[in-house]
Amino acid sequence: MYEGVVQNLIDELGLLPGVGPKSAQRIAFHLLAADPADVKRLAHALLEVKEKVRFCRVCGNVAAEEECRICRDPRRDTHVICVVEESKDVVAIEKTREFRGTYHVLGGAISPIDGIGPDDLRIRELMTRLADGRVTELILATDPNLEGEATATYLARLVKPMGVKVTRLASGLPVGGDLEYADEVTLGRAFEGRRLLDV
Amino acid sequence: MYEGVVQNLIDELGLLPGVGPKSAQRIAFHLLAADPADVKRLAHALLEVKEKVRFCRVCGNVAAEEECRICRDPRRDTHVICVVEESKDVVAIEKTREFRGTYHVLGGAISPIDGIGPDDLRIRELMTRLADGRVTELILATDPNLEGEATATYLARLVKPMGVKVTRLASGLPVGGDLEYADEVTLGRAFEGRRLLDV
Repeated sequence: MYEGVVQNLIDELGLLPGVGPKSAQRIAFHLLAADPADVKRLAHALLEVKEKVRFCRVCGNVAAEEECRICRDPRRDTHVICVVEESKDVVAIEKTREFRGTYHVLGGAISPIDGIGPDDLRIRELMTRLADGRVTELILATDPNLEGEATATYLARLVKPMGVKVTRLASGLPVGGDLEYADEVTLGRAFEGRRLLDV
Repeated sequence: MYEGVVQNLIDELGLLPGVGPKSAQRIAFHLLAADPADVKRLAHALLEVKEKVRFCRVCGNVAAEEECRICRDPRRDTHVICVVEESKDVVAIEKTREFRGTYHVLGGAISPIDGIGPDDLRIRELMTRLADGRVTELILATDPNLEGEATATYLARLVKPMGVKVTRLASGLPVGGDLEYADEVTLGRAFEGRRLLDV
């Protein structure tokens, strides 16, 4: 429908996650009308991220150097490792300011349906980190869905014999939510995990 | 929160229309994991569109050459001009296959609130096209909203004295819609524009 180069940009934008054909068209026309310098900056940011970003050799988090900012930070407690699926989970946990240990980014979760097995995740690297016996607690913070639960169970079985304390993030009602809108599974988990109130 | 280059890409993506901070993060991580060749292709498409796309010197539509594909097409009827706000409106009308005339893209609509007056639109260029008296009908296909209606009224008053037939696209119920879900203004217009059924 459009002149070749415009259609080409719309097609490329349409490949991005969450960008449908209508949004791709809208973004393309926005860029057509935008300052050329702005478009160049975006193109440059795209190329730069592929050139410069690597993954931390210790934990697998995104990093600008050999090790990520968290692994390089001497104030972090290296005796506790929190295992997550993706780098964005690290960011979500960092925002809580609750955790001062280190991370291990698996790069996904076990999902036979997508052909992802334990060997496709950074599990061998995790085992290496646990080998010297300095780690006292492994917090499994994979997503609370089918794949995340399977991955947590797999890791717990693998790590338990090493004598490391293995914990899992609590499931329950989201804070600020309405009990009546909670799904049954979440509500069931909230009952299971109920705590004694010390008042 | 992220290493500089990743945050930079997230910020740049977040400037695009319809891309919020969460989508920008999602797209950035998708690109981090993507094949470098795919990311290069996207960056290239961005730069190419700014380099190669210009606007048709006749109608103002996006074009890869001096004139757009429609203005260069000898089968199009140059006696009828359809006035639209944006190039994407041209595409929408072309998809109907109802119209075989030519277009004039204004580049927006009159909107005092956004500081857009008649001089910011390609109205002078439209007047030049009408000057030789060859155009018999001007179809005003600006959006059926406040700004589009104001622009259509403005153009109609400007063009009427030249003796050109000026028409406006019909307002009414969308085909396939439910009468009860139509807003009052649309339903009112549908009544106003009701037609005699020849059965």
